[in-house]
Amino acid sequence: MPNPTAAMLVIGDEILSGRTRESNMNHLAVQLSAHGVDLKEARMVADDHPRIVEAVRALSSHYDHVFTSGGIGPTHDDITADAIAEAFGDRIDVREDARALLAEHYARTGRELNAARLRMARIPDSAALIENPVSIAPGFTIGNVHVMAGVPSVFEAMVASVLPTITGGAPLVSESLRVDRGEGDIAEALGELAARYPDVSIGSYPFLLDGRHGSNIVFRGADGARVRSALAELAALMGEPE
Amino acid sequence: MPNPTAAMLVIGDEILSGRTRESNMNHLAVQLSAHGVDLKEARMVADDHPRIVEAVRALSSHYDHVFTSGGIGPTHDDITADAIAEAFGDRIDVREDARALLAEHYARTGRELNAARLRMARIPDSAALIENPVSIAPGFTIGNVHVMAGVPSVFEAMVASVLPTITGGAPLVSESLRVDRGEGDIAEALGELAARYPDVSIGSYPFLLDGRHGSNIVFRGADGARVRSALAELAALMGEPE
Repeated sequence: MPNPTAAMLVIGDEILSGRTRESNMNHLAVQLSAHGVDLKEARMVADDHPRIVEAVRALSSHYDHVFTSGGIGPTHDDITADAIAEAFGDRIDVREDARALLAEHYARTGRELNAARLRMARIPDSAALIENPVSIAPGFTIGNVHVMAGVPSVFEAMVASVLPTITGGAPLVSESLRVDRGEGDIAEALGELAARYPDVSIGSYPFLLDGRHGSNIVFRGADGARVRSALAELAALMGEPE
Repeated sequence: MPNPTAAMLVIGDEILSGRTRESNMNHLAVQLSAHGVDLKEARMVADDHPRIVEAVRALSSHYDHVFTSGGIGPTHDDITADAIAEAFGDRIDVREDARALLAEHYARTGRELNAARLRMARIPDSAALIENPVSIAPGFTIGNVHVMAGVPSVFEAMVASVLPTITGGAPLVSESLRVDRGEGDIAEALGELAARYPDVSIGSYPFLLDGRHGSNIVFRGADGARVRSALAELAALMGEPE
């Protein structure tokens, strides 16, 4: 059975303006890979209601799971929760279970649960909360979409809360071989190898280091013995140590 | 007149598997911002022919420009050029102008222009070449899509080749103010400010540092005086130095 598929949707002007480097996608990719879920696509859109609705609908109908990051805080530019509710045609308002979590947290830390913070308890009616052990304000899962915060420490904690609820497949085995030759010198051998190992994905990632060309060849597949066999064949051919 | 819009399409399994951190998007975002082009969306897809065709068609019909990175090398997993040609219904084959560039380069560096390397001269009929001063194999522009390499040094050189050919708008002025309070404490003031400055985009980016909450508030707009005025109002309100 093929692994479940997933997409990520990163929401936020700061990534597209170049001000902030996106870092949650790499974390999610590594975690999903270990869990046997294949991340197939990622999209980044601005804090723009119609674009978020459109992207959520497109991705949730194409993939088994969608993971979003960003736009669920207390400020005016945090519009993700409302956009997701619209994408699913669900009602959204301050929900009592989320409000209670925030009330307890702010009472304990001596801060005010004001109107702005209360926005973080806006949760679609049919959603399940995602636990946030870092800063309490929860994420939520609606349909096949998991809605999480953009702050990396909170995002990572929410991924850890969500992943155990998702049925994964076989984790892929991944091995790589560095070859100190340009891609043009190894492409033919690589193409032949790929044709004989249709069950192993073979990727070639060239680099330029001190003016010299080299490539990292990455072998990925569900069957570890096949992955290692493909790598060993290439290493022997190239005279490289495995 | 509003600025021209753009999208980026990152092509390559290595990003989605988590093996490689994507880094070209941030470079492009910064360059476009300075050139007065608004990056509105980014997508990342695997080395998968139908998904590349679909993404190129969707993005090129939505935005003024599309910039792609990855998948134009000599190996079997470099399928971008053929997918782009199909997206535009154009014919693709080894093109004489690109072949001549490669032949001269490999003759000069004493390497063989073999069949694999010749694949890098596969260019759609109606495309214009993008100069690659780093490793010669060109990118290309077809319609409103600019097709570039994934290796960062080559990608950056190609962006520098393409940008002068694109008509930009007014570069956005961007200023930021760090506020050492949680978003929940400033959200109301921020919302009021945003309503009074509809021409300034005001974004709030929370952080957690040593267990304390803070926010970077970013003001962006075409009119520098308005941007600075909005920032000054918030700084006065918060008692923060500008």
